[in-house]
Amino acid sequence: MTPIRLSQLREVLGKNGIEATLEGDDRIVSAVNTLEAAAGGELSFLSNVKYLSALETTRADAVIVPNGVQVPARLTAMRCRDPYGAVTAAIVAIHGYRKHPQWGRSLSAQIDPTARIGSAPNLANGVTISAAAVVGNNCTMYPGCYIGEGARIGDDCVLFPNVVIYDGCVLGNRVTVHAGSVIGEDGLGFAPQNGHWVKIPQIGRVVVGDDVEIGANCTIDRATLGQTEIGSGTKFGNVVVIGHGTKIGPDCLFVGLVGLAGSVTVGRNVTLAGQVGVAGHLTIGDEARVGAQAGVNSDVDPKASMLGSPALPLDDARRSVVLVGKLPEMAKRLRSLEQEVRQLRAQLNGQVASGERAPT
Amino acid sequence: MTPIRLSQLREVLGKNGIEATLEGDDRIVSAVNTLEAAAGGELSFLSNVKYLSALETTRADAVIVPNGVQVPARLTAMRCRDPYGAVTAAIVAIHGYRKHPQWGRSLSAQIDPTARIGSAPNLANGVTISAAAVVGNNCTMYPGCYIGEGARIGDDCVLFPNVVIYDGCVLGNRVTVHAGSVIGEDGLGFAPQNGHWVKIPQIGRVVVGDDVEIGANCTIDRATLGQTEIGSGTKFGNVVVIGHGTKIGPDCLFVGLVGLAGSVTVGRNVTLAGQVGVAGHLTIGDEARVGAQAGVNSDVDPKASMLGSPALPLDDARRSVVLVGKLPEMAKRLRSLEQEVRQLRAQLNGQVASGERAPT
Amino acid sequence: MTPIRLSQLREVLGKNGIEATLEGDDRIVSAVNTLEAAAGGELSFLSNVKYLSALETTRADAVIVPNGVQVPARLTAMRCRDPYGAVTAAIVAIHGYRKHPQWGRSLSAQIDPTARIGSAPNLANGVTISAAAVVGNNCTMYPGCYIGEGARIGDDCVLFPNVVIYDGCVLGNRVTVHAGSVIGEDGLGFAPQNGHWVKIPQIGRVVVGDDVEIGANCTIDRATLGQTEIGSGTKFGNVVVIGHGTKIGPDCLFVGLVGLAGSVTVGRNVTLAGQVGVAGHLTIGDEARVGAQAGVNSDVDPKASMLGSPALPLDDARRSVVLVGKLPEMAKRLRSLEQEVRQLRAQLNGQVASGERAPT
Repeated sequence: MTPIRLSQLREVLGKNGIEATLEGDDRIVSAVNTLEAAAGGELSFLSNVKYLSALETTRADAVIVPNGVQVPARLTAMRCRDPYGAVTAAIVAIHGYRKHPQWGRSLSAQIDPTARIGSAPNLANGVTISAAAVVGNNCTMYPGCYIGEGARIGDDCVLFPNVVIYDGCVLGNRVTVHAGSVIGEDGLGFAPQNGHWVKIPQIGRVVVGDDVEIGANCTIDRATLGQTEIGSGTKFGNVVVIGHGTKIGPDCLFVGLVGLAGSVTVGRNVTLAGQVGVAGHLTIGDEARVGAQAGVNSDVDPKASMLGSPALPLDDARRSVVLVGKLPEMAKRLRSLEQEVRQLRAQLNGQVASGERAPT
Repeated sequence: MTPIRLSQLREVLGKNGIEATLEGDDRIVSAVNTLEAAAGGELSFLSNVKYLSALETTRADAVIVPNGVQVPARLTAMRCRDPYGAVTAAIVAIHGYRKHPQWGRSLSAQIDPTARIGSAPNLANGVTISAAAVVGNNCTMYPGCYIGEGARIGDDCVLFPNVVIYDGCVLGNRVTVHAGSVIGEDGLGFAPQNGHWVKIPQIGRVVVGDDVEIGANCTIDRATLGQTEIGSGTKFGNVVVIGHGTKIGPDCLFVGLVGLAGSVTVGRNVTLAGQVGVAGHLTIGDEARVGAQAGVNSDVDPKASMLGSPALPLDDARRSVVLVGKLPEMAKRLRSLEQEVRQLRAQLNGQVASGERAPT
Repeated sequence: MTPIRLSQLREVLGKNGIEATLEGDDRIVSAVNTLEAAAGGELSFLSNVKYLSALETTRADAVIVPNGVQVPARLTAMRCRDPYGAVTAAIVAIHGYRKHPQWGRSLSAQIDPTARIGSAPNLANGVTISAAAVVGNNCTMYPGCYIGEGARIGDDCVLFPNVVIYDGCVLGNRVTVHAGSVIGEDGLGFAPQNGHWVKIPQIGRVVVGDDVEIGANCTIDRATLGQTEIGSGTKFGNVVVIGHGTKIGPDCLFVGLVGLAGSVTVGRNVTLAGQVGVAGHLTIGDEARVGAQAGVNSDVDPKASMLGSPALPLDDARRSVVLVGKLPEMAKRLRSLEQEVRQLRAQLNGQVASGERAPT
């Protein structure tokens, strides 16, 4: 942690393109923390109006807030239009990113003589690098990582413990994979034959772009033929499951427990919320957003917002939910209409019977 | 396995607060088994009336049953109000809990010299304990476990193979973590900037209370700031996914494939059934119960029972399901009402035309 | 890769029971590839009419197509009734199945002296085989695999990196388990007692049949008592979660993120699509099919097709979805009926008032 004076931090934000103003004492802050947990000398922030009341009780010395939010006088306020971006920059400035243990090239790492390892390797005990694999410069691999035959890892990658990269798969530069994730396992490729399943050799691979971050315990199938692709800058939460031959564009964000079947094509900047499922062979357009637990079973237009299972455009999905909630009322209105119509008919027929000369 | 006479077992149950009566011979039983699989000399039980007919065909010598259930004369019946609790106590008495292999402090475990290890360590080959980590007394770690820098593990913990505890995370006493689970990975914390995602350093940690059991292949994000918390006595099934900064109270039960987003607050004794999802920043009250596959997108009251996606109170959710099932009938009634109203109008207009003096 | 002449390949298909005809030059093909990615000299195929237009642009030299599909003259067409089976056989003939690294019996594998290992072992560094375990002939275990005490592995099994088999569990012959999967962890077996959860020892095991393939990061609970069973020939995708005591028949196919609770009985040839959930103690009949994200909460008949949460027979589920989509229209028709009935009543009462002699 590097303590920083708020006026200096404002300059750092400026270099990040974030204009901020300071109201109150120009204090030194030593850490960023939540409003609830912050101690004296710490910087906090208001990310969500839900937590507005916590401004009154926080022990922080300074807070990052959006414009227009009232702040108690004892707190120095750092105002800007993008508090989320400002907090990110503040955390980076004060805390920085994780420092990894330094193992160098551990003697107990099992590195095949035909593998090529770049400069400044940081390979823990219990790492296995197989024949003909290529590892770039400055790569960190925690214990239990396995790099299969002929796999290629770019520069500046970080693989947390027990990450498995199957044979022939490719990671770009600056890729981070969290613990227990598996890249390149065979997909569920079986052909039915006389009531049994015959395995289709899965001879494709996975290609992961630059600056991708994969959460923990994810699984990304290799393609049956050709390649499964994860676009540059895309970020996955935990336990994201990607089927064989699926191609995901750049800068997407997939939350935990998302599952995509095989041969799906996803554009750029697509957001899939938690537990979303996508059926096979579909296309999801650029900048589409799919809400939690939605089940996508048809193509999604660019910029569309989808919700529900089966997934519908957001407005339709919400209207359906509202109307399903109104079903008890609708059922009641239907019953009273039926009763009323019965009465009307009786009244009309009675009237007919009495007020009209009998027709026959 | 320790064979036990049924009268002795009844005493064991009594010490566990379970009053039982014996009907039939006071036999010695050598194992607990299902009605279907039990052999002679074994004790079985009826947990679910669904399996009542299996009492007729079981080869067990004795059965634990609730009061009021008829039992064939050849079987000794042990009756009590809580058969589930009685079977638990019987299994503990006869079979006991798993005995772990004894590795002591394996020579091939990689233990940093600055780590502190308590008494009676049982650390397998392929275990890594990083710098400044603290491990309590009587801890068992199976092969492939990784304890990050500065992590703290309490007394009497059991980590099955390939469990990963990231840097700085804390486990209480008597915590069990099944194989492949990951505690403390970075959450999905990225700030959007010019169409790309900028990583927010995740500088918080995870704190797990005492007597927690975590299933296999779960993932628990560290907090961005502050801590993610798992309350004492809470139990997770497999592949439970917990987002950053979420705080879960004591004695909760989460079934497999449950996913909680970030900053959720869960009370005590909350039950989440399989595949439940909970959106971010929500509060779930004490003793709430959420049914399988429900999608919680608003706060849940204490003791509430919820179902559906979006989750509704149980009665509303069931009524919705019933009414959706009745939609075909409602659509039919609506059509016949429309027809009837058309006829009424025709009849009324016809009558008006014939029975009334023309108004103009 | 073994290049093959198309006429020879046709013979190979014939031996696999697939009759094919050749139209065009009898070329040699050196690889199978997708229409999009194929280069000259390669064989491709049309699996889905969705990709029909790709036939025009592919650089492949030959294509496997179903009867009746028009193929550009420059391509040799191999026609048959089962293109999927034909492609499978072609990939096997030309590419074959994965060749594993050959470690023999690695010196750094930790094999307990009381374990029995069959002939031709292929056990990597970082493999642990515990006391009294039995491993059959020709087994491959990648680094980080753990075989618990008394577990039994059949012949010709392949365990990819970091697979964990708990104590006492049994795999048949020719079983493949992908990376990170866990077999035999304790299920969520806890009895409530005074607001806390008391662990029920899980003394059963898991028995996996022959020719089973398990995807990556799956978890299969051991039974509390007796055994959890996975039938011969059954195939799982990734992150399939199976509860304790569940018994699955032969030749089933479970897609990614499927979760079954405990004590479920599944017949043979059952297909569960992605993210399906099944509640405890249910029975799913032979050849049933359950659509993606469905929530099964009652028994499923043999050969039934189910969809939705709660799962309904396919036709009912689709009708519900259609009718929910028509709710806005139904609500509108209900409103206009109410208005019309009001008018009719007014008209009728007005008429009554004027056209009828006052009754009292």
